[in-house]
Amino acid sequence: MQSFELNKSDIQRVKQALEADDEALIALLSEYHASEIAILFETLSQEARERIINILPLEIASEVISEMNVEIHPEKILNNLTPDKRTEIVEEMDYDDAADIISLLSEERQDEILEELDAEDASTIRNLLTYDEDTAGGLMNSQVLKVNSGLTKKEALEEIIRLSEEIEEFYTINVVDNYNHLVGIVSLKDILKSKHSVHIRELVKDDFVFVKANTDQEEVAKLLSQYNLTSIPVVDDEMHLLGRITFDDVMDVLQEENTEDMLKISGVSEDEELSGNWKEAVKSRLPWLILNLGTAFLAASVIRHFEPTLGQIPILAGYMAMIAGMGGNAATQALAVTVRRISLNDLTDSQAYSTVLKEFMVGMINGAVNGFIVFLFALLYDANPMLGFVIFSAMTGNLIIAGVAGSSIPLVLKRIGIDPAIASSIIITTFTDVFGFLLLLGLASELLL
Amino acid sequence: MQSFELNKSDIQRVKQALEADDEALIALLSEYHASEIAILFETLSQEARERIINILPLEIASEVISEMNVEIHPEKILNNLTPDKRTEIVEEMDYDDAADIISLLSEERQDEILEELDAEDASTIRNLLTYDEDTAGGLMNSQVLKVNSGLTKKEALEEIIRLSEEIEEFYTINVVDNYNHLVGIVSLKDILKSKHSVHIRELVKDDFVFVKANTDQEEVAKLLSQYNLTSIPVVDDEMHLLGRITFDDVMDVLQEENTEDMLKISGVSEDEELSGNWKEAVKSRLPWLILNLGTAFLAASVIRHFEPTLGQIPILAGYMAMIAGMGGNAATQALAVTVRRISLNDLTDSQAYSTVLKEFMVGMINGAVNGFIVFLFALLYDANPMLGFVIFSAMTGNLIIAGVAGSSIPLVLKRIGIDPAIASSIIITTFTDVFGFLLLLGLASELLL
Repeated sequence: MQSFELNKSDIQRVKQALEADDEALIALLSEYHASEIAILFETLSQEARERIINILPLEIASEVISEMNVEIHPEKILNNLTPDKRTEIVEEMDYDDAADIISLLSEERQDEILEELDAEDASTIRNLLTYDEDTAGGLMNSQVLKVNSGLTKKEALEEIIRLSEEIEEFYTINVVDNYNHLVGIVSLKDILKSKHSVHIRELVKDDFVFVKANTDQEEVAKLLSQYNLTSIPVVDDEMHLLGRITFDDVMDVLQEENTEDMLKISGVSEDEELSGNWKEAVKSRLPWLILNLGTAFLAASVIRHFEPTLGQIPILAGYMAMIAGMGGNAATQALAVTVRRISLNDLTDSQAYSTVLKEFMVGMINGAVNGFIVFLFALLYDANPMLGFVIFSAMTGNLIIAGVAGSSIPLVLKRIGIDPAIASSIIITTFTDVFGFLLLLGLASELLL
Repeated sequence: MQSFELNKSDIQRVKQALEADDEALIALLSEYHASEIAILFETLSQEARERIINILPLEIASEVISEMNVEIHPEKILNNLTPDKRTEIVEEMDYDDAADIISLLSEERQDEILEELDAEDASTIRNLLTYDEDTAGGLMNSQVLKVNSGLTKKEALEEIIRLSEEIEEFYTINVVDNYNHLVGIVSLKDILKSKHSVHIRELVKDDFVFVKANTDQEEVAKLLSQYNLTSIPVVDDEMHLLGRITFDDVMDVLQEENTEDMLKISGVSEDEELSGNWKEAVKSRLPWLILNLGTAFLAASVIRHFEPTLGQIPILAGYMAMIAGMGGNAATQALAVTVRRISLNDLTDSQAYSTVLKEFMVGMINGAVNGFIVFLFALLYDANPMLGFVIFSAMTGNLIIAGVAGSSIPLVLKRIGIDPAIASSIIITTFTDVFGFLLLLGLASELLL
């Protein structure tokens, strides 16, 4: 099977089937996995989505809504269903998915929908809604496979098989005492391999990884990935078992955090939706551009200061643009490498120090090579070796500043507890613009006039 | 348990223990998980690493080597072990990890090490070495949990428990026929839930996801994440079962691919190691900077062309830098959003079209707002409304070009089969530099002289 990619023929077929009756539509959709239908939804109208959800089997319908990209608003579909249908679909959903989608509605609407559910489901979802969505509590599913440590192998297996009707996946089994305190974990493998007479408490692994409900989701993702876990239990401050987070939730978190880093480093607000409309995009990017404009005035004021020099040596204007542009790009390179490195691993002080030193060296060499090329050009084209020397020096100096600023700013931010990706290319290019102009025009004033 | 972060006291303690005898060192290290020791290794000398590997229990030692960051060269440790120790450690490793590390050595050395192993292990690893490391074959583990479809429930459970001695994790069980053709999958849950008399072939799910050995690893990651799988079977062209890829391998692939995207978009070669030395960094970045220098000459030639205009209106030089800088940053914003969107989802033609249209709108509005601020400045500070109008127009025009180029170039690249992230900020800022200068200086020549 190939990974599902939207192609024209799929969309064409579904759109044709939408013209036909429900039976033909269902027959066609039965060829697709729920997650594929969720992707197809991105190209369909809201009306078509609602019609499909209404005729799909309950189990598939609830999975499609759970898998829908939040950018195409799964909560709208839920909102527009009849109360009975909605209750049926929400009851089919995993609690964490239900809570995620319901949380997108207004508080009054949330209450109305929760009141339609049975009391236990409603209170579980209400509980999940209290956690911040970026924490372990917001990510966890409260349906968790757990057995009491006092059970025998036979009793535990029966309990596991019974629970597995409700819980889709069961990788690791959590072991609790009579007060629902998490005492350890046990693998199904170890239960199966053990003798018949054994009690679960004899099999328990008490050296295991868990998280508190308020742990940041990025931290959860790091733990799961570092220890190669399929799931991780979530507890409260008294070690009561609250839920578990599975690897598939964490893969989504990883992609989300990577998106945030990539956007932030490019001067885009982390919460801009990739497929959002132009109004959202303007709201997300305009503040950064205005900040950039402020710093651009600074760079322009350097140029104004040296206006007499520029007036006497007008060819400097072209070289000026060249040195600023090169500095900006070299700084972006150093920034991307450093931010990515910090987000994958924490650096010790000595690693941080040697990173900045490395970028100094890289800036010096890349600056000298590029500076030499421009020097040759100035020599041959403008027949002015001293001008060449000024440009060579400014290029080298600016690329050193680019490397040092591009690496040290995110490192310092991380040290003082600020997200290093905020050191976007916008902030960094200010340095290289201002210093590039200062170096070139300052040296030119000294040496060429 | 908190995620393991290198901190000074851990490093200090290990370094002190390195001064002491082996016994004290082992006692200290027994507090750490193998993946934590692998991280600690990043701050230790090669000599210390080899000493620790030699005294750790075999199982831990092989896991530490498997978990080591390739940037600190696990293959060097393997290379320097005594042949007996090396054989023991390699035999403890998963085949895929052993193949990954051995592949880093020279071919002659690979042969020497493989000859030390027993014939079956050697031939399995040799087979894995033939696959490209970026494909499913290069990623898979050939130790795979499989049962014959003809077994009864009881026989299958016995077989699974027997195999589970060798195979660390078993999530999904592959079902094969007598010729090792993959016929489907079955979950342990379904086996446990079934009646005693059942045969595996009655439980098999034949609608399942698998990949060919030559499938690209990014594709494998997408499949696992889209269908929320813990593992995916790998087959050859005749559907023979070759191995399986588990979710933890895929998490590493996701991080790797995200790193590549982030580096490429910033004009850094995708294979620059984040913690590499300055020589590698120069090699990776200098070609991109020289390419940028080439395009900077183009931008500079536009300025030279308008030298007379600049000579008459020298204050244009400052505004010039401003418009080019703003254009570069706006283009980087559009680029980051578009590249990230493409890498998470494929876009239909109409989605691509509306993306470019959106960026046109965003560019126009952000350009007009920032242009208006500069217009006010020109009016108040330079007392020149026509100059303000020229700057307003150039800013708006350049930000429109930034948005359109930043979104359409990666989309076109994707369409013609080239990695869209190659449309780095370096390529994009050329557009905004050249057009920014052309617009500002061209308009100024027409309207201000």
